[in-house]
Amino acid sequence: MSKILIALGGNALGENAKEQRELAVKAASAITDMVEQGHDIILSHGNGPQVGAINLAFQAYAKSKSDDSFEMPFPESGAMSQGYIGYHLQNALRTELLNRGITKSVVSLVTQVIVDKEDEAFKNPTKPIGPFYTKDESEKLSSQTGETYIEDSGRGYRKVIPSPSPVRVVEADMMKELINNGHVVIGAGGGGIPVIENDKNQLIGVEAVIDKDNASEKLAEELDVDFFFILTAVDRVAVNFGKPNQKELESLSVEEARRYSKEGHFPEGSMLPKVQAAIKFVESKPGRKAIISSLEKAKEAVLGKTGTVVYM
Amino acid sequence: MSKILIALGGNALGENAKEQRELAVKAASAITDMVEQGHDIILSHGNGPQVGAINLAFQAYAKSKSDDSFEMPFPESGAMSQGYIGYHLQNALRTELLNRGITKSVVSLVTQVIVDKEDEAFKNPTKPIGPFYTKDESEKLSSQTGETYIEDSGRGYRKVIPSPSPVRVVEADMMKELINNGHVVIGAGGGGIPVIENDKNQLIGVEAVIDKDNASEKLAEELDVDFFFILTAVDRVAVNFGKPNQKELESLSVEEARRYSKEGHFPEGSMLPKVQAAIKFVESKPGRKAIISSLEKAKEAVLGKTGTVVYM
Repeated sequence: MSKILIALGGNALGENAKEQRELAVKAASAITDMVEQGHDIILSHGNGPQVGAINLAFQAYAKSKSDDSFEMPFPESGAMSQGYIGYHLQNALRTELLNRGITKSVVSLVTQVIVDKEDEAFKNPTKPIGPFYTKDESEKLSSQTGETYIEDSGRGYRKVIPSPSPVRVVEADMMKELINNGHVVIGAGGGGIPVIENDKNQLIGVEAVIDKDNASEKLAEELDVDFFFILTAVDRVAVNFGKPNQKELESLSVEEARRYSKEGHFPEGSMLPKVQAAIKFVESKPGRKAIISSLEKAKEAVLGKTGTVVYM
Repeated sequence: MSKILIALGGNALGENAKEQRELAVKAASAITDMVEQGHDIILSHGNGPQVGAINLAFQAYAKSKSDDSFEMPFPESGAMSQGYIGYHLQNALRTELLNRGITKSVVSLVTQVIVDKEDEAFKNPTKPIGPFYTKDESEKLSSQTGETYIEDSGRGYRKVIPSPSPVRVVEADMMKELINNGHVVIGAGGGGIPVIENDKNQLIGVEAVIDKDNASEKLAEELDVDFFFILTAVDRVAVNFGKPNQKELESLSVEEARRYSKEGHFPEGSMLPKVQAAIKFVESKPGRKAIISSLEKAKEAVLGKTGTVVYM
């Protein structure tokens, strides 16, 4: 029996409330498989599509009221997404656990994650968010607001915000207690609400997005889990992905993972951050293992039948 | 040293993110006063203006995308409001506690509250939500959607949704553990996400609003608190409110409270539900007391210097 932190992708949760409700049921089934195997589970999740929708919804609302003050800042939008996604996940997990005769409670905690205000990411925003604009529109917006816009994957221009590294998960102590008491805990949703600490003990929400896999890795360290499980769209990490000589990897030493990363085998913004988070976790303490696999195969991956294990 | 559940009004939290952030700091100060007095605190809060704004924001968003599927159902809007308000409250409380040298953690839990699907409220929706319409507009909407609209306080016509009674707070067991471990817990925000239970162990979110004071009362019972503290705009409950012979009450027996309620001293939709929730709590077990007072005077009210104590 192990303690496992599972990082679920925000894209796995659909585009609207109905889709999310259905996909949460699917995720709950795979996660309950692991609870049934006897493991203690902490669940984190992404929020890319959801936090974007919340932010845009309040833009539309503010516009309809001709009052900018009704726009929703990014940290608050992230907090909303934690309530929204957490509700569906805890609701679906409760049902699945009960139906399998497992008496465990499930709860989502609103989670803040501290970042360093001197993080280089604040000088170099890289995370695209919100709608696409033409080059002209984006230049106009940038000159009006001082915001940075970049060309995104040939689809147009988008605003970018910083993606700083997580320093500490504020509510980790309470998560630890709940897990130790036998509950299933959902936390650090969307990488957590990014906050910086000032000299008055205040945590100030900042317009930034902490990478979900990075924040989950930090939480996995703080909760001292045995396995850090990163769910993605594929069953295994591959080298030469999409080429005739594509090779799926059963296991990946930290050394190999570094070499393949350098050789460009893992696309930025998708597999690369996952492999990097896995390396970081494995190196943080002897014996720690990371697994990268799909939601559908999670149960088999824990047993070593599929997935890619990253080890030291 | 007592265990106290404090129910904070949603109207005390302003109209947008900036106001809410500032008002949460004010609330945190008053609540920390009570922690400093040695009490264990559970905080619940309303969400009327916030859940309304979220719901309308997604209406505006869906309209901008010409796609109804992007509207946000009421239970999910409520879940978002718990993340949004919970974030500001736990953030502000953490700072205030630290600055007074109190080492306690604070966290908000996403909370579902079970209601009975046979509750009479579902046949007779009474809770006004959303924007105001003219009589003609409301009749057109009602015939299109089957929704109920009523005339609201002379300000126009509004949609009404059911306000069923709370049966059980799903996540109460975990709140109890966290409080017993010395933390400050925020839960049952907005009266909780209203769900009905079906015969497959599923909790289905329903378009309804559980009165915040009722849900808080139920939670106060389940957590076996000593004092149920209902915060409102006035320092004390009064009879003949707003009249020359207005009289503020230091204390109120259950019997008096019933009589004054019957005599129409307490306005529906404001003081009446608070007095009724207070009666229910006091009658639930010998020794339990309810206090109705303002945020500003909360600290004095706990000491019996102001506020209205409702007792058996």
